[in-house]
Amino acid sequence: MARPITFGEIEGIEEGHWFADRKEMMPSCFHRNSGWGVDGNGKEGAAAIALSGGYEDDEDHGDEIIYTGAGGNDPDTKRQVKDQSWEHPSNAGLLTSWDQGLPVRVARGHNHKSSSSPEKGYSYAGLYCVVDAWEELGKSGFKICRFRLIYCGSNSDRKTPEKTEIAGSPATPERREGTVMRIVRDTEISLEIKRLYKNHCQVCCIAIPTKTGSYSEGAHIRPLGRPHNGDDSKDNLLCLCPNHHVMLDRGSFSIDDDFSLLGPISGKLRVNPHHDINEDNLKYHRQIHGYEK
Amino acid sequence: MARPITFGEIEGIEEGHWFADRKEMMPSCFHRNSGWGVDGNGKEGAAAIALSGGYEDDEDHGDEIIYTGAGGNDPDTKRQVKDQSWEHPSNAGLLTSWDQGLPVRVARGHNHKSSSSPEKGYSYAGLYCVVDAWEELGKSGFKICRFRLIYCGSNSDRKTPEKTEIAGSPATPERREGTVMRIVRDTEISLEIKRLYKNHCQVCCIAIPTKTGSYSEGAHIRPLGRPHNGDDSKDNLLCLCPNHHVMLDRGSFSIDDDFSLLGPISGKLRVNPHHDINEDNLKYHRQIHGYEK
Repeated sequence: MARPITFGEIEGIEEGHWFADRKEMMPSCFHRNSGWGVDGNGKEGAAAIALSGGYEDDEDHGDEIIYTGAGGNDPDTKRQVKDQSWEHPSNAGLLTSWDQGLPVRVARGHNHKSSSSPEKGYSYAGLYCVVDAWEELGKSGFKICRFRLIYCGSNSDRKTPEKTEIAGSPATPERREGTVMRIVRDTEISLEIKRLYKNHCQVCCIAIPTKTGSYSEGAHIRPLGRPHNGDDSKDNLLCLCPNHHVMLDRGSFSIDDDFSLLGPISGKLRVNPHHDINEDNLKYHRQIHGYEK
Repeated sequence: MARPITFGEIEGIEEGHWFADRKEMMPSCFHRNSGWGVDGNGKEGAAAIALSGGYEDDEDHGDEIIYTGAGGNDPDTKRQVKDQSWEHPSNAGLLTSWDQGLPVRVARGHNHKSSSSPEKGYSYAGLYCVVDAWEELGKSGFKICRFRLIYCGSNSDRKTPEKTEIAGSPATPERREGTVMRIVRDTEISLEIKRLYKNHCQVCCIAIPTKTGSYSEGAHIRPLGRPHNGDDSKDNLLCLCPNHHVMLDRGSFSIDDDFSLLGPISGKLRVNPHHDINEDNLKYHRQIHGYEK
């Protein structure tokens, strides 16, 4: 596993790409280890999974997959003989992908129970995001780690369950249906900023603890998209906890050129010496939220 | 305006529905006030807007609309003669709809600049969600309040810009593109819980301040959706700040039957006497996150 882990799409391997076997996935680093379901680890995240029908509890609903983690099996009989653990590199890797919003390449094998499985070999099902992780007692009586993944690739004809939930929820007058959605898929730039601060919020210093790590959000000072058209660049990004991200986006506070916090929060933004923040972006934020005199 | 404000779809009025004039919108409570662009107020939220071409700064990109708020106009000349204010009922109403995730009915008038505008009268464009609000200096030199709305209705053939952003972001190996998305559209049940606690987090007591109000999230104890299939009911909901919502969903803490907090947070969940919480849901949460012995 000396070759580096690679996240996201790999050039020349499109959705539907067919692999004759697991070894064929290795030269391109699509999946670097033919003996494991997951390619990844807790430190870097999980970049790919191969579904091979090993777990009867797995559920494949197409763009939504319930995946059982690794570990606890007897290597000879393959039977579950002890609890799975969140610290197992495969499980910790999927948790890190959830924490950091990293996409996971999914390949379905011929032994995997799904109408989309190929008759032979493996086929690439696209990029998925981890959106939930929990534990259960498996049929063996031992603890298993489970994950929910949803399709988050670039094929817009495919509808993810999350998207369908929003799009399809009938907004009747009573509004019985509804959904809370939080999909965070980060750019490399955003991950760099979050790593620089080790997920500690630049406002309150909190790092949200998760099962095996911590969580923060990359927040744009000058917003992306119309009509602000801010850049997705390090000098326009902050590492914030979700609370202060909501507050920044809504202009509940702003930031002066000397990093003093303006509004209901006192104190200063903590800024790492390796993090240059663009003053024009700070000024833009102050202007659009009424802090610029 | 004695008739109650009504949010969401109105029976018998489908997307594309045509109104000969503003008065035709009133009997059904589609839009209760023919003299204003916005139907709503800061306390209840904004339920509908009629686009009549009043503001040259408005931008209509179909499923994404940049809308200029109300106020500051001379009633005779219609010219902007002073600053707009976030406290104006129309602007405060749209802010409340953003805070609470309330859908806004949008109607396009024949004077409104858009290829989707009808030749006469008004046509119903569907439900939109407020996703951003900020201020600018208008062409007049006075402050204007602006809003970004995106389509969030039930017609799944229409793609909202947010959805397209996710679906279309090419997940290249370098992952240059990406997006952070936070769409919260609440059910009536979730709003009730948030009102009961006045947006104060049941864990830390914080209410996230916004421009004219406060913000919280309705968090499900037993998750919705596969495979948990929790209910969207009051006894399965908590009012939490975004930080504790992330932590609950990831099992960073859990809750005992006596509401003691389990995990890294000490103390007790604050529970209003009018809020019955289902113990089975608490137990389910403890089980799936390893807190149940």
